[in-house]
Amino acid sequence: MSNQYITERGMDDLWNVWYSELHNHTSGLTLKINRMVESFQSEFQRIDVLENDDFGRLLVLYGSLMVCDRDNNAYNEMIAHVPLFCHPSPKEVLIIGGGDCGALTEVLKHPEVKRCTMCEIDKMVVEVSKKYFPALTAGLDDPRAHVVYQDGKVFIEQAKEKFDVILMDLSDPVGPAADLFQKSFHQEAFNRLTDKGIMVAQSESPYYNQETVKAMYRNLREIFPVVRMYTCFMPIYPSSYWSFAFCSKGIDPVRDFDQARYDKIRPSTRYYNDEIHRASFVLPQFVRELLV
Amino acid sequence: MSNQYITERGMDDLWNVWYSELHNHTSGLTLKINRMVESFQSEFQRIDVLENDDFGRLLVLYGSLMVCDRDNNAYNEMIAHVPLFCHPSPKEVLIIGGGDCGALTEVLKHPEVKRCTMCEIDKMVVEVSKKYFPALTAGLDDPRAHVVYQDGKVFIEQAKEKFDVILMDLSDPVGPAADLFQKSFHQEAFNRLTDKGIMVAQSESPYYNQETVKAMYRNLREIFPVVRMYTCFMPIYPSSYWSFAFCSKGIDPVRDFDQARYDKIRPSTRYYNDEIHRASFVLPQFVRELLV
Repeated sequence: MSNQYITERGMDDLWNVWYSELHNHTSGLTLKINRMVESFQSEFQRIDVLENDDFGRLLVLYGSLMVCDRDNNAYNEMIAHVPLFCHPSPKEVLIIGGGDCGALTEVLKHPEVKRCTMCEIDKMVVEVSKKYFPALTAGLDDPRAHVVYQDGKVFIEQAKEKFDVILMDLSDPVGPAADLFQKSFHQEAFNRLTDKGIMVAQSESPYYNQETVKAMYRNLREIFPVVRMYTCFMPIYPSSYWSFAFCSKGIDPVRDFDQARYDKIRPSTRYYNDEIHRASFVLPQFVRELLV
Repeated sequence: MSNQYITERGMDDLWNVWYSELHNHTSGLTLKINRMVESFQSEFQRIDVLENDDFGRLLVLYGSLMVCDRDNNAYNEMIAHVPLFCHPSPKEVLIIGGGDCGALTEVLKHPEVKRCTMCEIDKMVVEVSKKYFPALTAGLDDPRAHVVYQDGKVFIEQAKEKFDVILMDLSDPVGPAADLFQKSFHQEAFNRLTDKGIMVAQSESPYYNQETVKAMYRNLREIFPVVRMYTCFMPIYPSSYWSFAFCSKGIDPVRDFDQARYDKIRPSTRYYNDEIHRASFVLPQFVRELLV
């Protein structure tokens, strides 16, 4: 290409890279990519860092968009604060997955937490997040953060200690996280919870992944006495409507929400607040019917 | 192209039409189109009917996706039932816009409604909807439905009667509906409301259209004593997160929700229910801060 053309049109006009994440190959989110920032191949998966005008930097794991600079952090706030404000004394917290460290950082906003163990299989996800998403990884500097690089399944099977709260902060049930959506794994997690323990697992989109959601909740209900879905709006995830399974040995996510503790901490958040905590358990009619 | 190739690969493999609706030319929804069903040019706008595997038939007005077969009807249910279950006696209802007739059909599920006037500027939108979206237009057969083809601005200025509920069921503030987002128009609507009157206006995405949302709520608050935002999840609208402005002369959308009437009617809905009614007024932190 001659320099003449570059001068006339400008380099930006010549750049047309799009990231498209599709459901069933027929619908999804498409983002114009300003810049392919950096790509990696870890032992477990392909990792890409991209950049878009509206959303800022994007972290893509195994071909799925995980986090971005501008996403109001809804997912990480909702997976962490909902169980932590319900448990009467969340001292020991375990995160399975969560390599971007966003959930860890939210968990550590709670002074009651004595230790937050994060078991991530892929060290490279943490390294990439430290480099490109420093706001998310701030929690790593906290002395209460304890990072283990191991398969979550092996960790849970071998663990001797019990946890007050376990967060299943996993990517989709394909690729490295597939086994961690199985009933047997949820049973192991149940066994590692204290008497008032709570497990929260991300549970996909109730709009797009209805069969996965149905099967997952059916299995969880055979293990946990209390299983409740809550949702949030997450513009970079498929359908933008995301769900979490709140599972406990008895604690109720609405009745047992600790308003006084929330008022005392009032963690700085972009999405979560006390009213959203309660409202997130209210489900539209089509989701209610999905879970019957 | 020789028949040999068609036989080998099949026609479907040779069809790659995509509909992409973008925000700021950099992010948005993309849908594979199975079939361009029919396109029209009315006096006011281009109208397209398309088809996608996940969403079924799609109605596109002025380049924006308005309704589809599979959208759980969230938008129409939320714009209609929220005000109607708050007004103590919603006899006279006016819809400005709403040519797909989905809101009209929801309104007429309320036996208290004596007449529902729909003022749509573009007759062709109603005709196309009747042809391709019969479930949405079912309400047209109700003797209480009264359709006027006129500019909403002219209708409101010339109207002599008053309305209990006015719904601003408009497309985006570009194209034919631009004037109907202005403060002067909202003032005219206020003047046409009865003492306990409620106006609900669709108010765009609080994620993508933040400046529009801010300006609109500032204006509405200078006219109406009560202005409250509520939201729903609407997967075919930009960002999938959509808002409505509930505006009244005094009626509160949560306190004055008529549970007994809801329990009696329990309209068949795919999204709306009594709990969603209340929860839809709870806003994430970033939206709260937007409206301060």
